[in-house]
Amino acid sequence: MTLATTPPDAALAELMHDMGARARAAARALALLSPADRTRGLNAVAAAIRAAATDILDANAKDMAAAQTKGLSAAMLDRLALNPARVEAMAAGVEAVALLPDPVGRELARWTRPNGLDIARVAVALGVIGIIYESRPNVTADAGALCLRSGNAAILRGGSESLHSSRALAGAMRAALKREGLPEDAVQLVDTANREAVGHMLGGLGGAIDIIVPRGGRSLVERVQTDARVPVISHLDGLCHTYVHTAADPAKAVAITVNAKMRRTGVCGSTETLLIDQAVAPALLPQIAQALQDAGCELRGDARARAILTGIAPATDEDWATEYLAPILSIAVVDNLDAAIAHIERWSSNHTDAIITQDESAAETFLARVDSAIVLHNASTQFADGGEFGFGAEIGIATGRFHARGPVGADKLTTYKYVLRGTGQVRP
Amino acid sequence: MTLATTPPDAALAELMHDMGARARAAARALALLSPADRTRGLNAVAAAIRAAATDILDANAKDMAAAQTKGLSAAMLDRLALNPARVEAMAAGVEAVALLPDPVGRELARWTRPNGLDIARVAVALGVIGIIYESRPNVTADAGALCLRSGNAAILRGGSESLHSSRALAGAMRAALKREGLPEDAVQLVDTANREAVGHMLGGLGGAIDIIVPRGGRSLVERVQTDARVPVISHLDGLCHTYVHTAADPAKAVAITVNAKMRRTGVCGSTETLLIDQAVAPALLPQIAQALQDAGCELRGDARARAILTGIAPATDEDWATEYLAPILSIAVVDNLDAAIAHIERWSSNHTDAIITQDESAAETFLARVDSAIVLHNASTQFADGGEFGFGAEIGIATGRFHARGPVGADKLTTYKYVLRGTGQVRP
Repeated sequence: MTLATTPPDAALAELMHDMGARARAAARALALLSPADRTRGLNAVAAAIRAAATDILDANAKDMAAAQTKGLSAAMLDRLALNPARVEAMAAGVEAVALLPDPVGRELARWTRPNGLDIARVAVALGVIGIIYESRPNVTADAGALCLRSGNAAILRGGSESLHSSRALAGAMRAALKREGLPEDAVQLVDTANREAVGHMLGGLGGAIDIIVPRGGRSLVERVQTDARVPVISHLDGLCHTYVHTAADPAKAVAITVNAKMRRTGVCGSTETLLIDQAVAPALLPQIAQALQDAGCELRGDARARAILTGIAPATDEDWATEYLAPILSIAVVDNLDAAIAHIERWSSNHTDAIITQDESAAETFLARVDSAIVLHNASTQFADGGEFGFGAEIGIATGRFHARGPVGADKLTTYKYVLRGTGQVRP
Repeated sequence: MTLATTPPDAALAELMHDMGARARAAARALALLSPADRTRGLNAVAAAIRAAATDILDANAKDMAAAQTKGLSAAMLDRLALNPARVEAMAAGVEAVALLPDPVGRELARWTRPNGLDIARVAVALGVIGIIYESRPNVTADAGALCLRSGNAAILRGGSESLHSSRALAGAMRAALKREGLPEDAVQLVDTANREAVGHMLGGLGGAIDIIVPRGGRSLVERVQTDARVPVISHLDGLCHTYVHTAADPAKAVAITVNAKMRRTGVCGSTETLLIDQAVAPALLPQIAQALQDAGCELRGDARARAILTGIAPATDEDWATEYLAPILSIAVVDNLDAAIAHIERWSSNHTDAIITQDESAAETFLARVDSAIVLHNASTQFADGGEFGFGAEIGIATGRFHARGPVGADKLTTYKYVLRGTGQVRP
């Protein structure tokens, strides 16, 4: 038994260690390329994905067949499925990343000390980024492209359901890099269904991995947060609020609330709780509620909301604490701006919270005092998205406070170094 | 037995949890103050430290007496000892921090999207910072001041040897904040010698602590890195190199090398390995070696160095990997710039590395390719210090790559949020 199981484990350890070493070497080479070379690599990768569309779709068909046999849910099958339009969207996404400003080498600050030492803070790549994701094959292309743009090497570990698809994608990307004379190991796929591979990555591969990014459901993210021995950029809860202030424009309040809740209910930026000022609730809440109900939303309310909207279910503390990710909205009538901020401070996951008002002073108070990654005035919480911010793509949305917060684009996949230029200075 | 030990543990857990809750409330209040209020608080704290000098010195005398009884080393006694000049230096240090630009609320970036949404990235405080340190009482004042400047609440846990001193200091700081009508819980001292308190802090106090900063020796830092369940800013190794290039100015090479190694040998920025180009080694290495030996430095060399400097001990791979923190220097003769960079890539801890040359092109290659937190041209590695960078004070020097790198001043004790200002935008 020991003899039978030890070799595969040792082989996996060696495989993973080797991937780490190759990633580190590729990261060093990649970071020293010119921005133009990285752009050339990205465009070559996009072209290669397009050229390999047939192979990628054939590989995806194998994954889909296996997934159907295994009885995966319709939602999971939809996340796994590729078609010509989705392959084209991946290629176009890589081209969009190629158009982004290159974040490496930016001078972030520069000053001269009284002794003449010139000090510059310069952006550099983080190094090697491990991405652990579930069934969506497009993460292979998106995350790989963002890492290339930012001079980082990617070690990609997709779900076993998408292994054929990811292999075809990563293969096309690597071949394109090689043809361009660029480091192909900048994009590596962990090409094994062995679940121990994730444990190796979380351990950091002997210092080779600088950060880990989990992309997927809560159980994956929690496991990574608990077990990772390297820093993590991750997304946990999106319990978002929209507050309709006493000076809200009624038409905007209706339109924004309906969009914030119902545009897509399964995304992290969808509003889960509506707060409405007591001064305007009697007149405005029925209009908002009607529009929401017309769109198919279930409403739950506190006592004051139910006094206005008769017949809706009561909302309890459990509702204030729940990220429904479904067409359900909890509603609280609040006394004023302070009470709205207090509710958010108590219940928000500090992801994205909005105020609807025509009162600039109230808006600025809200924007300053609500300590969430994204705060909005007169706009839908569903703008919580890197693409909507103009980042081209995002590696994810960070719900932590350290290093990166909110949508994480290529520029946040960098760190910095201090470059000191002297003329012979010694320290007294 | 169970009955006897459970109450104190439960009491400690409750005490720590309560500190966390009070820190969080203080952090929220502190972050919403104006920069002028934080400056006023800092100046009041400085004045209070000066006014309490006698109490602080009396408390320190108790700590010193106990430390002498326990037989602490001379070095530890020196770190623990306060005198009027050291108390005045602490007060002056807090005043220097009061003069620093306030980092909270800075607009880091701002742009407008095609749909008219105005997006700003704005610096905000990290929140609650736990600082775990050893015997030096001045960390209480330095770290507390940096946290105040950056809108963060500090939970300070000093070594048990310095408990009386830290208590007197923190007491003076808190009283000053209270007198000014500012949140006194922005500075809290863990006022117990119970070592379990550190474990509670590393666990994050139920989400109350945002980051941990260990200040002290290797065993403390390693324990924090291993056990902390929250992000850590920490300093591990400072294995620094000075490379004398073929185009080095001889006088600068001698002066900088001697300063980089010998100014203070126990600091993280002291050079541990001298790399010297083979083209200039025969002429220049004897001069450098003589100056180092005159300053009391022991030299060890590779074969080529020993062919020039007869009589010095051999340097092995163990030397290249050793942070001596002592008057010992290992010397390697290298073929050229590439070989110097390769040696650094293999052995450096990526803390601080320098090149001495009059060749701008070689210097820029070195500065770009060496991936250390601090890279220098024609200056001493001993400039690796927040004060020398103009940061006024530093919470420490970070050897990780995530969030902060190199000397960490008040501006790096912030994170950011996105503030979106709209006119009714909804997402299509």
